Amino acid sequence: MPLLENIRGNLLTLSEFSALVVGLLGMLAALWLYRWVKKQPADNQTVLQIGGKIMRGANTFLKREYLLLARFAGVAAVLILVFLPSPIWKTDDILLNVTMALAYLCGTAVSALAGKIGIQVATIANMKSAEAARKNIRLSFMAGFRGGAVMGMAVVAMTLLGVTVLLMLTEEHSALLGFSFGASSLALFAKAGGGIFTKTADVSADLVGKVELGIPEDDPRNPAVIADNVGDNVGDVAGMGADLFDSNVASMSAAIIIGSAIAADAGGGINKMNVAVVLTYALIGLLASIVGVLSARMGKNKTDPTSALNKNTYVTTAVYFVLTAGATMLFPGENYKNWRIWGATMVGLLVGIIIGVATDYFTNDQRKPVRKTATASGIGPAFTILSGFSYGLISILPALIGIAVSALAAYKICEPLGGEYPMFGIAMSAVGMLSIVAMIISNDAYGPIVDNARGLVEMADLGEEALKATDKLDSAGNTVKAMTKGFAIGAAGLTVIALLGAFKSEVNAVVQGAIKGFDIMDPVVFFGLIIGAAIPAVFSAMLILGVDRNAQRMIAEIKRQFREIAGLSQGLPGAEPDYDRCIDIATRGALRELIPAGLVAIFSTLLVGFVGGVQAIGGFLTGNIVSGLLLALFMSNAGGLWDNSKKYVEDGNEGGKGSNAHKAAVIGDTVGDPFKDTAGPSINTQITVVSLVSSLMAALFLHYSII
Amino acid sequence: MPLLENIRGNLLTLSEFSALVVGLLGMLAALWLYRWVKKQPADNQTVLQIGGKIMRGANTFLKREYLLLARFAGVAAVLILVFLPSPIWKTDDILLNVTMALAYLCGTAVSALAGKIGIQVATIANMKSAEAARKNIRLSFMAGFRGGAVMGMAVVAMTLLGVTVLLMLTEEHSALLGFSFGASSLALFAKAGGGIFTKTADVSADLVGKVELGIPEDDPRNPAVIADNVGDNVGDVAGMGADLFDSNVASMSAAIIIGSAIAADAGGGINKMNVAVVLTYALIGLLASIVGVLSARMGKNKTDPTSALNKNTYVTTAVYFVLTAGATMLFPGENYKNWRIWGATMVGLLVGIIIGVATDYFTNDQRKPVRKTATASGIGPAFTILSGFSYGLISILPALIGIAVSALAAYKICEPLGGEYPMFGIAMSAVGMLSIVAMIISNDAYGPIVDNARGLVEMADLGEEALKATDKLDSAGNTVKAMTKGFAIGAAGLTVIALLGAFKSEVNAVVQGAIKGFDIMDPVVFFGLIIGAAIPAVFSAMLILGVDRNAQRMIAEIKRQFREIAGLSQGLPGAEPDYDRCIDIATRGALRELIPAGLVAIFSTLLVGFVGGVQAIGGFLTGNIVSGLLLALFMSNAGGLWDNSKKYVEDGNEGGKGSNAHKAAVIGDTVGDPFKDTAGPSINTQITVVSLVSSLMAALFLHYSII
Repeated sequence: MPLLENIRGNLLTLSEFSALVVGLLGMLAALWLYRWVKKQPADNQTVLQIGGKIMRGANTFLKREYLLLARFAGVAAVLILVFLPSPIWKTDDILLNVTMALAYLCGTAVSALAGKIGIQVATIANMKSAEAARKNIRLSFMAGFRGGAVMGMAVVAMTLLGVTVLLMLTEEHSALLGFSFGASSLALFAKAGGGIFTKTADVSADLVGKVELGIPEDDPRNPAVIADNVGDNVGDVAGMGADLFDSNVASMSAAIIIGSAIAADAGGGINKMNVAVVLTYALIGLLASIVGVLSARMGKNKTDPTSALNKNTYVTTAVYFVLTAGATMLFPGENYKNWRIWGATMVGLLVGIIIGVATDYFTNDQRKPVRKTATASGIGPAFTILSGFSYGLISILPALIGIAVSALAAYKICEPLGGEYPMFGIAMSAVGMLSIVAMIISNDAYGPIVDNARGLVEMADLGEEALKATDKLDSAGNTVKAMTKGFAIGAAGLTVIALLGAFKSEVNAVVQGAIKGFDIMDPVVFFGLIIGAAIPAVFSAMLILGVDRNAQRMIAEIKRQFREIAGLSQGLPGAEPDYDRCIDIATRGALRELIPAGLVAIFSTLLVGFVGGVQAIGGFLTGNIVSGLLLALFMSNAGGLWDNSKKYVEDGNEGGKGSNAHKAAVIGDTVGDPFKDTAGPSINTQITVVSLVSSLMAALFLHYSII
Repeated sequence: MPLLENIRGNLLTLSEFSALVVGLLGMLAALWLYRWVKKQPADNQTVLQIGGKIMRGANTFLKREYLLLARFAGVAAVLILVFLPSPIWKTDDILLNVTMALAYLCGTAVSALAGKIGIQVATIANMKSAEAARKNIRLSFMAGFRGGAVMGMAVVAMTLLGVTVLLMLTEEHSALLGFSFGASSLALFAKAGGGIFTKTADVSADLVGKVELGIPEDDPRNPAVIADNVGDNVGDVAGMGADLFDSNVASMSAAIIIGSAIAADAGGGINKMNVAVVLTYALIGLLASIVGVLSARMGKNKTDPTSALNKNTYVTTAVYFVLTAGATMLFPGENYKNWRIWGATMVGLLVGIIIGVATDYFTNDQRKPVRKTATASGIGPAFTILSGFSYGLISILPALIGIAVSALAAYKICEPLGGEYPMFGIAMSAVGMLSIVAMIISNDAYGPIVDNARGLVEMADLGEEALKATDKLDSAGNTVKAMTKGFAIGAAGLTVIALLGAFKSEVNAVVQGAIKGFDIMDPVVFFGLIIGAAIPAVFSAMLILGVDRNAQRMIAEIKRQFREIAGLSQGLPGAEPDYDRCIDIATRGALRELIPAGLVAIFSTLLVGFVGGVQAIGGFLTGNIVSGLLLALFMSNAGGLWDNSKKYVEDGNEGGKGSNAHKAAVIGDTVGDPFKDTAGPSINTQITVVSLVSSLMAALFLHYSII
């Protein structure tokens, strides 16, 4: 078969070409979905009016955030240009510096674009979903889901296009690292900023509205209600999109860097075969997600949207499994090797699903943790906190075992291949875990969209039926969210292990054999380890304190409005709250608080690197991963648990709404809010950023450290 | 100087002999202090009656706990006899197994004795301190402080005697490890059991009494009030004593094991010089503490007991500094070497004090964290939690930096000595940090004694003056407690790093050069690392859930008594609560909950060791240390912060008693209670136990692992 032979001979070119085609296909799918969402009817004036406010608020925040971050990115780009990969006065090839700086700027721009697309469609889809809820829950579901899927498709397609174009233009690792760093540094700030915004608004609105005044959620009298809905978009949609874009780029970059550095079967240069495998599996992931997304719908007689969301995931996974197996059969070279790499990839996928299921156990209201926490609420808020705190700590065990076992298994599967293949196996398991990320993002962005839709239904008074339908959709969003968060954290965990490998590989590229490994018994490594472990704790504490401070300002403003605007609390006609001031407070506060925490993470890396050198950095990254995973899993799961425990009580258990148990459960939920939506998910990105900074700075740390 | 030459030539014998003498001196000092306390007058009938109840309650709990643990220790001793250091059917020398099993039993017995002594004197000193408070705060202080000092002296003297006798009888490491494991396994359960007891009683008494019924702290109408006072003794006195005994033995053992394995200057065998150094520095620590304790008193015109407590610490430290420097001048051999080892020891001492001061910053009501948290309480309990949680997370940074820097500095100071000296340096820094431990325990046990005294004053109605005096003493106890806890955790941190070195040294003793180090990039090490990090989280969660469950039972009982005993809530004469039932509930609950968490820690070590072998254990211990330190520091500090923040509000700030801020602050305090007094301090011991199990099982893991 000469054709097949020919194809096999040019596998890299072929896979790059295919990646471009599939990437464009993904963009087209996103565009088609976007147009589908836009076509849906929405003509209720109140919905359009409130929805418009939300849209403007979200866009204003995004614009101000991006303006701030553009300045930051500009400074960073100049620093990269001057110092990286080698200081400009020492380098032979200044083009490398230019390439890296440009790649960095592209990474930030694409990440910003991903957030922008997400907001754009989410703030339309929420209105469509609200309007559809009056007629038909299935249509309402479709509007929410497809709205989310636009971002899912777009993010993954852009990852594929970005990485492929970079690979075609330059074969330098530095370009990939620069691109990935651009993506993740923007994600770090976007996630932190959006997370602070959304929880400031949510917590303040709940505390004054629900707890003090006893008015319902999403009541239009509440001055913070629009800010709350804006927050869902800027925090949960744009932030999550940026986060998973970043993980996805990082996992692909790590796999390509490690894989391409393995001596090729014949001749020198990069290992094209391995790069082709990474691209092929990634593009199949997007294809599988397109199939999954387009086939997604609520069955005619089904009433539970959760099963529809889960079904999509399983369809995507199955398609991915079959197609990658097929592609692996066609791969040239030793079958033995190809199947082992495939096996490592599948380990990641499998463990991702296991982590998701385990997370679900701890946040599902059918299970012991949520129910026991609800019971504890009957005794008092301290018991709500202690119970949720404890289950949150226990919840990290299955996920950590999953990550540990999958790293070990991927390594062992590829160990017989020798050389750096075992580490490549780990990197591929991260790629495998993230392969269905388009589906994950779709499911995840669905949540805030239908949450917003519920708000619109309530505020525009679209009727009891519509409220019930969106309530059901919203609840499914919450259930799925816990799973996707576990998934995102697991993926980040494996990715940073791979990035640790990439770091080692980068250092060894500068000075052959400079690092054999990182020995824990080396006190420099240990020093880095301990400091590294402290960073995620300090980072997340700063974000939570940011929410805390910001919410105090916001609460004062809400109370002022209720006090000073005549007739507001009674809801008299004409007594309109000043929504914009609340949005403005949340925006200004978030912008003020988002920078310091991120800088702490970045500067501590530089400090440890220039003090202790590459060995200290090895320890630092490890400590960072360990404590970061621990805190991220704990915060996400405890937050989800408290949230669902409150909902469980509100469903009439343990005394129901208005009971002491309910009050205690609300306190638990308020504590959990910044855990699960500000600090927890930001830690992911913090770990990735720190890993990438280390890889970028590898050469400098090697040459200029004190110890 | 032939005499000096002669002395130098027999340095080990001399230091062993001196250690025995100083150990006995310490026991005499303890006895003298005990008699002094006993001689103080206490003849108020109500005080004697209530004090008697507390004493009986504490002794009953201790007896039941020890009976349970004796069974456990018996089983463990048989297992050790059969399997350790080598399985009985494989060993050439069965005497080794017998020695280790006996040493283990001695360790448990001495640890139990330490707790018993502590309880014995504390339950007398509380009455004396209460009675003295009517006349004179200085005398009241002395009774409390000297009561605590009995345990401080006894614990350190017994450490010194135990280790020295073992060294004189046998030169086997296995005996030391067995002794240390005995001490720490008992401490693990005693700390967990006592911690669950004390917080069950404390939380329940507060929740029903202070929060629901609005009756004051220590009100005799409250059925849980005696249990609460018993808890202070069994948790804070006996538990803390066992904990620091365990750290102290472990740090000496690690230093002796590592130091003695370093090739001696001439001839083979153990390195006598290094062992002599460890013993000498340790005995000087006890001497310095005796000086410090006996010189301790509140100045005639001083009204603040805190400064007296701090002064003692500084006196002890100064004496220790001067005496060790003097001894080092007299040491034979190269001055160069001796001074470097001394330097490493001093680094530990210095960092211990720095950690204590840093901890103080986060828990002192003059500082920002406590005040900001009090302000946040004005908004609502969720903000109390979020604020304390965040500052708690940030508080780990200085302590972790301290530990990292001191390990690095100790290593670097001893690096020029070559071989395993750098690791010996780290072990010596742990010894240095723990050198003034007798003083630390004295300060620490002082806290619960005067807390009890305050309770007795309140319950026996000894007058406003006495209440004010004991309030002041109690508050000083809380301030110092935060420092001593930071100190205990820091010491445990350095100790387990040394134990990691001891583990490596044990493995290499079995198979020469079996371990060069633990490379993080080895996936087996990484696997262990991730699992190890999860264990302290699960362990502490289990303890907190234990308190949670137990308190629920206790609260039901307290409410039942108030409901069913006529006239109790109004305090009518003759309406006496059933204190014993509450004590019984706390006891039974604590005994039921204390075993599982400890077993999880031990069995997970065995599982990881038999699956992944010594490399996985290296990672496991590291992960355990990192996450254990993080959680222990966080929990202790956050708990102390919430406690003091509540007291700050109660002093009339942010609205004072009865305000919303106060209610929120009480919730924070309740959450913090099991953090700081159950889970946090138990993690210390958990880390040590896991490290010792690893060292004990080293040979078995080496030969019988799956991977």
